Amino acid sequence: MAHPEASEQAQDLKNVERLKFFTDAVVAIALTLLILPLLESVSEAARTQQSATDMLAEHSGQIMTFALSFVVVASFWIVHHRIFEHVSRYTPALMGLSFLWMFTIVLLQFPTAMVGALSPEPILLGLYIGLMALSSLILSAMTWLVSRDARIRSGRPTFEASSLAASFSSSLLFVLVLCLALLIPGLSYYALFLLFLNRPLQRLLQPYFARLQTRLT
Amino acid sequence: MAHPEASEQAQDLKNVERLKFFTDAVVAIALTLLILPLLESVSEAARTQQSATDMLAEHSGQIMTFALSFVVVASFWIVHHRIFEHVSRYTPALMGLSFLWMFTIVLLQFPTAMVGALSPEPILLGLYIGLMALSSLILSAMTWLVSRDARIRSGRPTFEASSLAASFSSSLLFVLVLCLALLIPGLSYYALFLLFLNRPLQRLLQPYFARLQTRLT
Amino acid sequence: MAHPEASEQAQDLKNVERLKFFTDAVVAIALTLLILPLLESVSEAARTQQSATDMLAEHSGQIMTFALSFVVVASFWIVHHRIFEHVSRYTPALMGLSFLWMFTIVLLQFPTAMVGALSPEPILLGLYIGLMALSSLILSAMTWLVSRDARIRSGRPTFEASSLAASFSSSLLFVLVLCLALLIPGLSYYALFLLFLNRPLQRLLQPYFARLQTRLT
Amino acid sequence: MAHPEASEQAQDLKNVERLKFFTDAVVAIALTLLILPLLESVSEAARTQQSATDMLAEHSGQIMTFALSFVVVASFWIVHHRIFEHVSRYTPALMGLSFLWMFTIVLLQFPTAMVGALSPEPILLGLYIGLMALSSLILSAMTWLVSRDARIRSGRPTFEASSLAASFSSSLLFVLVLCLALLIPGLSYYALFLLFLNRPLQRLLQPYFARLQTRLT
Repeated sequence: MAHPEASEQAQDLKNVERLKFFTDAVVAIALTLLILPLLESVSEAARTQQSATDMLAEHSGQIMTFALSFVVVASFWIVHHRIFEHVSRYTPALMGLSFLWMFTIVLLQFPTAMVGALSPEPILLGLYIGLMALSSLILSAMTWLVSRDARIRSGRPTFEASSLAASFSSSLLFVLVLCLALLIPGLSYYALFLLFLNRPLQRLLQPYFARLQTRLT
Repeated sequence: MAHPEASEQAQDLKNVERLKFFTDAVVAIALTLLILPLLESVSEAARTQQSATDMLAEHSGQIMTFALSFVVVASFWIVHHRIFEHVSRYTPALMGLSFLWMFTIVLLQFPTAMVGALSPEPILLGLYIGLMALSSLILSAMTWLVSRDARIRSGRPTFEASSLAASFSSSLLFVLVLCLALLIPGLSYYALFLLFLNRPLQRLLQPYFARLQTRLT
Repeated sequence: MAHPEASEQAQDLKNVERLKFFTDAVVAIALTLLILPLLESVSEAARTQQSATDMLAEHSGQIMTFALSFVVVASFWIVHHRIFEHVSRYTPALMGLSFLWMFTIVLLQFPTAMVGALSPEPILLGLYIGLMALSSLILSAMTWLVSRDARIRSGRPTFEASSLAASFSSSLLFVLVLCLALLIPGLSYYALFLLFLNRPLQRLLQPYFARLQTRLT
Repeated sequence: MAHPEASEQAQDLKNVERLKFFTDAVVAIALTLLILPLLESVSEAARTQQSATDMLAEHSGQIMTFALSFVVVASFWIVHHRIFEHVSRYTPALMGLSFLWMFTIVLLQFPTAMVGALSPEPILLGLYIGLMALSSLILSAMTWLVSRDARIRSGRPTFEASSLAASFSSSLLFVLVLCLALLIPGLSYYALFLLFLNRPLQRLLQPYFARLQTRLT
């Protein structure tokens, strides 16, 4: 009688693999397409017969934006990777969150292109950092879902308190960065340097999550 | 003597995996490329020195079209995912339908870009919603094929009546949306809200499919 | 003593899987990017405020080219898929042919875009059909390599004569199409309809390949 | 007691597979997107009503740059493929190097587009060859890391001296090409022909690496 169950488990795992694979493909493409605005600038420079030196000088900000978005998307993928190590079956809620998250990752290319090409405005700052904050919050929601729902893990261990703390401290910082960037004029993208506080904040939050976890289980 | 058969089955399964993988890659890329017209608008805005606020105001319709196509392609993928849970071998017919379906998914980027960038016309509406309806009909044809052909499933159970009903009710609604949008001027894309009737229609059709399935098996 | 060998075989298989996967990803992307020239035409139409009807009329040839290239690349992938069902280990020669083949598939986007956008010229015809013929010839070379090299198959059966005939008849037809299109003015892409002769030609060649195979083994 | 360990090993392997898969997807996309500047040139030619012959003549350099970057990225992927045959678990250092390497591969599209479209300048040469050299050096660092860290290999054998020599000789040549191209005016991209010395240099370095390996183990 154990056999059909085992085969069902294998099928569940395969379905999760396919969802993971699809997510990975979407993220990999979005990550690579971040270079597109720079390629567009090259065609523009060719059309106006700009020299390479002038082009690089004019678009240095765009190169920085590309690098910044690359690092953010890559680090989000690493978090997603860690979450799904614990997943061996998905529920409609997890599927929904996955597609919502992919939506933010694909859409992030839009403010990335805008920040690199248009003159700075608060709405741009809000859109760019706000979308990152949203993406990070969805990852935290996923972490929470997986840590609470034993069906999703089905046999696999839950997160350690440190993982939970890491995920939530990062979301907290993104929201903080968003508020500060919008409230303090002139701070702009420098507010993102706050993200370096992730490690200390994580250590600060860890005991709280450890207590929460023992209370809930 | 059972051994060669088992190894052949494993080979069949691997071939199906590769087809699934290829389909997933194509859908993931098409889903991510939906952002391209928005990136193009950013370069256009940079060329004409438009402000970010003006650009967002002017292209709000384009953002909606992106979101709409994203949701439609994502939901199609989920249906495809569910169909292939039942497949462990493919026939030339299933391979043909798969590539026909990929064709509609890749082509969908074209009317998506047109709807977002050109002034509205009935032909555009027909092309955009018609292609979605066609894509949905191909998925229904796949569902039907897999449910009827035991060789394709080879051991795996067939669909429950609810899955069949879900697949066909969604196709039915897309065709209905297409007709209404073309017949009633001014209705336009609002006709797509009819898709929210999917769940009630599915429940309506379910007993019919249950009876059909018992009669056929 | 059989154990290390088995584990080495498993490693070989994994390496082949990774090469197959990489090839699939490249082909899937190239297949999806075929839509790019059409998206470009939409931006062009938006810039010149063309109506959707005019745009579709003007670019009907481009839509046909997209469809044609899609069908050709898809059918090449199916042939590649069939070849690699027989492969369980790769040699440097097979790796080299694989990358050469990917090169033709990626490059095919270039004449596809040219044929759709520029005025017709013999050099364009030659480039477009010539690249298809080259891609098909590389697939035939792969088929030949896999059918002759038992190390590559390591235990898996070789091709049936019908598969060999199918692969070579298709290459033969592409070369024929190329010659006719270049020699007979006005024939142009209609020469591609010759590809429908693939099935009869395959049946014609099959006995020859069957004899060849018995002679060689 | 051996069971949990085995399952942990399987989990490690799965995580490595996912990292490999993600890397492959990124490289496959970057490799395919190398064609974009050529597609852009086609739209440009269509806009200015250039003939296909003129277009090909004008952009022959761009086609060469595409081919060159394709070959370089493809050969880098083969090296990466060989390195990861030895990996069955990753450390944060290997994860970091992987993303750094992907960054260079994605960014390489930028100087590729520039070299093909803008007039030649030393800074362009430095950027293009310098990025290749950096990418190659990161691969060498990965090779070194994997060869020294038994945890990463966990049971799999380390590299043979010939593999180590191949990886380092290639990086050495890229750095040499970079220096020569920048120092000797007029040498330009011809310096890349030095890469054909890879095989002889590898043979020259091999005894040194063999000795190094026996001393370290």
